Amino acid sequence: MSPDPNHSPTGETEIIQRYFSPLAAGTPGAFGLSDDAGLVQPPEGQELVVTTDMIIAGVHYLEDSAAQDIAYKALAVNVSDLCAKGAVPGVYLLSLALPGAADEKWLEGLSEGLAEAQSELACTLLGGDTVHTSGPATLSITAIGFVPCDRMVHRSGAKPGECVYVTGTIGDAALGLALLQGAQSAGARNLSSEHKAHLRNRYWRPRPRLEAIEIVREHASAAMDISDGLVGDFAKLCDASSTGGTLMGADVPLSGAASAWLTEEPERLGEVITGGDDYEILMTVPREATQSFEQDCHARGLRITCIGHISAQRDGVKVTGEDGQALHLERQSYEHF
Amino acid sequence: MSPDPNHSPTGETEIIQRYFSPLAAGTPGAFGLSDDAGLVQPPEGQELVVTTDMIIAGVHYLEDSAAQDIAYKALAVNVSDLCAKGAVPGVYLLSLALPGAADEKWLEGLSEGLAEAQSELACTLLGGDTVHTSGPATLSITAIGFVPCDRMVHRSGAKPGECVYVTGTIGDAALGLALLQGAQSAGARNLSSEHKAHLRNRYWRPRPRLEAIEIVREHASAAMDISDGLVGDFAKLCDASSTGGTLMGADVPLSGAASAWLTEEPERLGEVITGGDDYEILMTVPREATQSFEQDCHARGLRITCIGHISAQRDGVKVTGEDGQALHLERQSYEHF
Repeated sequence: MSPDPNHSPTGETEIIQRYFSPLAAGTPGAFGLSDDAGLVQPPEGQELVVTTDMIIAGVHYLEDSAAQDIAYKALAVNVSDLCAKGAVPGVYLLSLALPGAADEKWLEGLSEGLAEAQSELACTLLGGDTVHTSGPATLSITAIGFVPCDRMVHRSGAKPGECVYVTGTIGDAALGLALLQGAQSAGARNLSSEHKAHLRNRYWRPRPRLEAIEIVREHASAAMDISDGLVGDFAKLCDASSTGGTLMGADVPLSGAASAWLTEEPERLGEVITGGDDYEILMTVPREATQSFEQDCHARGLRITCIGHISAQRDGVKVTGEDGQALHLERQSYEHF
Repeated sequence: MSPDPNHSPTGETEIIQRYFSPLAAGTPGAFGLSDDAGLVQPPEGQELVVTTDMIIAGVHYLEDSAAQDIAYKALAVNVSDLCAKGAVPGVYLLSLALPGAADEKWLEGLSEGLAEAQSELACTLLGGDTVHTSGPATLSITAIGFVPCDRMVHRSGAKPGECVYVTGTIGDAALGLALLQGAQSAGARNLSSEHKAHLRNRYWRPRPRLEAIEIVREHASAAMDISDGLVGDFAKLCDASSTGGTLMGADVPLSGAASAWLTEEPERLGEVITGGDDYEILMTVPREATQSFEQDCHARGLRITCIGHISAQRDGVKVTGEDGQALHLERQSYEHF
């Protein structure tokens, strides 16, 4: 490492003690972040599910985002992966690259957002790394959850004939981002302020489906969370399962806000089903088990909607529109490259 | 996520399949990197030790570094942490932020360097994330190792009177970096080409002390790897243990190359003991146990050197020079801020 002549001798240690150690206070294996590594002991009969996601200023969130929102989202997108695998969140590690001098206010916001996310998402900080970057702020989170041995739900378990379900509603975050980027169409202009707030909030504060963890484990033959867009993620699930799939566009569940917008601009449906950042769970359920699955979801207050089915031919995902005809989409999902 | 109009629809998936899936071929819980998360089952009676380190182009390595070297180093610095905790390396996750278009040659080199490191460091790829950044290339690795329950070695276990040991030799990487940055002093100019190659190689290819894992677990009361400089890291160990420490500068073990350089420029000792990137292990051993410890190291061919001792007063680390007098240092270690 090349020395920085302007270093303050206790900078990194102080940052860790002030902003991150409090987040690790409830983690038995974190040792107050004063050691080189954390310790994890899985509960008896359980395995660890491990996932990692990196988010970068200007790529995964708008540059002027509040630090609280960035932090919340960084943890939420990782926890969402755990939920979709049927795993209960446990601990996480945060690697943070900070541009320029460490801004106390930004770090304070980050720490607040993480504290809020930890408490809502039921996991605590195990460890991390804090470094300087000449580029944009970068957060890399690795989240660790627990699942009973051999019970992790894979992408690859879907079988021809099975029904395809999603939790919650789709497209809110994509429409929220369009609003944040200044969308001025009639559909956008005519939204009520409550509807606008709902869409923006869904972009900023994805709520991983913790209440679906057990249901996924009990009922789903395959599952994944929807992060890069419903159609593209559905295609990934089909591909991993060596199947094809059909998605009934008209059945995709929409929030009141999204419905209001799409009533004026039905052509936005493509954006809704490919836009990403939903963090809902996509899962497949054998046809004969759908009734008990739906009852179980209903009993636990989890909104789920059947949006399609799995087909035998490994030929991608067909999307049908209102009239049952194939819908033409410009792209299937968000891609980084 | 905001869509990139220039995306290629299968870019990220292709990158993963081509460059990273082969690295996960030997990992039971990686599922060929085709799922959203990896699965880890610790061996019976073992816990998981988890560590994470982020490295960034231009900060942690020179911008024009070979991708092979960057990759090797990124994994090695994480594995080094595991070794110092007495943990056997298991699996790792890699989050990668790539600037601009993904350069095939660079990715190929990265993948080669990781393959080499995996095979030498006895761990395999479990999962990861690949994203685009507007900043410098950034690698964040989380490494997971295994340790028998309750046997992880902490920073905080040192007791007054104990002896302080280091593995291998200190300062090679710091001097190697000085060479790479064009050092032109007499000491540098007069080095043999073998000595120069040795120092540069120690900067590029840190070799985590896998052969010390069991010894650390059996004998050390406290341990950590030396990444930010011997003096500063020793001070961290003392601080975590609520003790002070004395470091005998003249006893710090040097390679033939470092010795040759320091013979001409003794004033470089400060750089050697504060420069960082050593990835040797610093550990403390109770005085009555040093004989069996040294015998054990000798039997296993592990070079260790006693360089100081632990004192009761929590007042930092005193460094003495050749003459036993206190040595003045401009700084204790590399710091990021």
